[in-house]
Amino acid sequence: MDATLPGVNASPALPPDNVFDWLDGEAGKRAEAGLTRRLRPRPAQPDELDLAGNDYLGLARDKRVAGAAAAAALRWGAGATGSRLVTGSTELHAELEHELARFCGAQAALVFSSGFAANLGAVTALSGSESAIVSDKYVHASLIEGCRLSRADVAAVAHSTPDAVRRALATRRKPRALVVTESIFSVDGDLAPLAELAGICREHSAALLVDDAHGLGVLGEGGRGAVYAAGLSAAPDVVTTCTLSKALGAQGGAVIGPRRVIRHLVETARSFIFDTALAPASAAAALAALGVLKSEPDLPAKATGNAANLAMQLKAAGLSVTLPEAAVISVRAPSPETAVGWAESCAEQGIRVACFRPPSVPDGVSRLRLTARADLTESDVDRAVKVVTATAPRDAT
Amino acid sequence: MDATLPGVNASPALPPDNVFDWLDGEAGKRAEAGLTRRLRPRPAQPDELDLAGNDYLGLARDKRVAGAAAAAALRWGAGATGSRLVTGSTELHAELEHELARFCGAQAALVFSSGFAANLGAVTALSGSESAIVSDKYVHASLIEGCRLSRADVAAVAHSTPDAVRRALATRRKPRALVVTESIFSVDGDLAPLAELAGICREHSAALLVDDAHGLGVLGEGGRGAVYAAGLSAAPDVVTTCTLSKALGAQGGAVIGPRRVIRHLVETARSFIFDTALAPASAAAALAALGVLKSEPDLPAKATGNAANLAMQLKAAGLSVTLPEAAVISVRAPSPETAVGWAESCAEQGIRVACFRPPSVPDGVSRLRLTARADLTESDVDRAVKVVTATAPRDAT
Ligand SMILES: Cc1ncc(COP(=O)(O)O)c(C=O)c1O
Ligand SMILES: Cc1ncc(COP(=O)(O)O)c(C=O)c1O
Repeated sequence: MDATLPGVNASPALPPDNVFDWLDGEAGKRAEAGLTRRLRPRPAQPDELDLAGNDYLGLARDKRVAGAAAAAALRWGAGATGSRLVTGSTELHAELEHELARFCGAQAALVFSSGFAANLGAVTALSGSESAIVSDKYVHASLIEGCRLSRADVAAVAHSTPDAVRRALATRRKPRALVVTESIFSVDGDLAPLAELAGICREHSAALLVDDAHGLGVLGEGGRGAVYAAGLSAAPDVVTTCTLSKALGAQGGAVIGPRRVIRHLVETARSFIFDTALAPASAAAALAALGVLKSEPDLPAKATGNAANLAMQLKAAGLSVTLPEAAVISVRAPSPETAVGWAESCAEQGIRVACFRPPSVPDGVSRLRLTARADLTESDVDRAVKVVTATAPRDAT
Repeated sequence: MDATLPGVNASPALPPDNVFDWLDGEAGKRAEAGLTRRLRPRPAQPDELDLAGNDYLGLARDKRVAGAAAAAALRWGAGATGSRLVTGSTELHAELEHELARFCGAQAALVFSSGFAANLGAVTALSGSESAIVSDKYVHASLIEGCRLSRADVAAVAHSTPDAVRRALATRRKPRALVVTESIFSVDGDLAPLAELAGICREHSAALLVDDAHGLGVLGEGGRGAVYAAGLSAAPDVVTTCTLSKALGAQGGAVIGPRRVIRHLVETARSFIFDTALAPASAAAALAALGVLKSEPDLPAKATGNAANLAMQLKAAGLSVTLPEAAVISVRAPSPETAVGWAESCAEQGIRVACFRPPSVPDGVSRLRLTARADLTESDVDRAVKVVTATAPRDAT
């Protein structure tokens, strides 16, 4: 900073009322591009059929899960009162960590206040200026932010292209390397080639970090996740991140992996150290959800079965649909505007679907995103197919 | 990335078991420096007197607050099921936002899943490559991460030094500017010169962002916060961030400010858009805590009164203590090791205090951090003074 430099602000000061005028300019640009977003608060008992949320097993409102949350709020308090290293770690957090690790077949787990925070923490703490990160270019924003904060050399490589990962690892300039991917990609619901990626990591002394946000509770034996299904959950060089807010119906996130990784995160992950611990109610809900999964190991297959059924019918109706590897279905729309209109028409007819548009899609393609839940009935699926098909913009088929 | 470059990994691949060996090396270095940290899960009803948490008003376990959390889990579900722009916005979130804005005397508010996420979102969305950020160098990690993610020119200036802020603003190379500070600094509990900073911002067409994490619920009329107390909460060029996890006893965070700022965050803040909404139980708890504050406007003064009393007595006993502006008290320790030992001795005698050491202190000084709560009794304070004084390392006085 050079004190003699004539600043741009040599011009007279703006009145305070105008300091944020630039925000209106940005809003205008978004409106022109058809990218305005609005919050639409929902009631406790919406009339709509929800095919937009990520509550894949229908556990958020399950009495065992919601009841555990309620009991924990009364027993432990509404908040954790401090960060995990000060007063925020309760026996409930420890039990959840123990059970999560056991369920997934890993040594240890660490609970964060969100999946976003877990990803920030894992990516930054497991890389650094001596590391290269090789990341699938379609990974979730939280992983991208982690990469940006990491001080590592970051290569974002072509989506689900193991060869590109191999090349980037082979030509890196840093001794350490971390390969970053999602298991089920959140937008299109496709599955990364995890076993192949793990093999490539081993050829190149790299660690593998898999975000199993949309796999945990849905894939693998009894919902143990995509990393478990790939036989990697006990691997000494693989780390899984996940969220407690999707199939487990709660809030929060976790990192699951080798004990020394977890210890390292406790001591160095800034999104862990400088953040109030997860509320006891949310921790208890996630713990209860794991209990439900253990007692009903067929629940995940119901979600994936409903997703497959829904997708096949939409495809049969001529829509451009991905065949789901888990419970996320993506339906292409011709443009952002038609995607918005399509989702709105569905909502008017009682079906809530998500509309994904730039900039929250990695490939610039607008689409409807539908999720299936374990508790959908056959008639729910039929109705959804009918409405989504009937409301499709002309050029979507 | 250059495909012909001979990578460091020309050496034979590490066995998978050794990929994370470097973490043990780092752990060894921390141990040598006396900086090892361990989680200590606490029971639901700890015997210790808690002077470490941030539950300044004792509301986390208040029946009205915890009861509201429990009822909300049952009514709304354990989780919000999706991001705020998809299925995660409930009428409960909207009501909390409305009440928070009203309570603080601002136009609008937006709830995030944590104060950390609120800070990331506010700093990044209100700056960018056309902006300069001038940040107090002692701000919280979440604000620092926000600065790092912002693509702005960032100047970290001397702690609570308005002249340094003025100089950095005057010599910036970017048209827009955002000044970033905490109100009550989390480590030492000192208060930033908010009115003076706002004046400087106005001279230089800059916006002011104040993190009121430790001020909301503690300072200002009825706990309306430090920004309110400085007469700035309705200002068109001032934005407040806060957490719901300290005085409000819940979990979550919020940004409070002009309506157009809030709209902009809805549409652009990545830690808002790509994150599951706050759990209904936590939103309801924060809402109930605002209700308690409105019905008991004297509660905040009890917390600050207890803090002043505690600090004065510790100072009278010869310790090196800050005089608190809110409810955070900092007591200097001669070294990280003595700080740890001191905190442990306090714990053995039934008083839980926090021990802050590098790297989580901005100035490298280790200290005990004590917090006062509204519900401390006089005998609690006396006992705390006795124990903290009796266990002090020789060179702390
Ligand atoms: C792939 C992926 N990772 C991480 C997250 C973040 O998890 P959370 O919502 O718990 O912050 C999400 C969704 O929100 C996600 O889709
Ligand atoms: C000053 C300050 N800002 C932000 C935060 C983050 O808030 P939260 O814990 O809700 O993520 C904290 C504490 O955790 C803090 O002390």
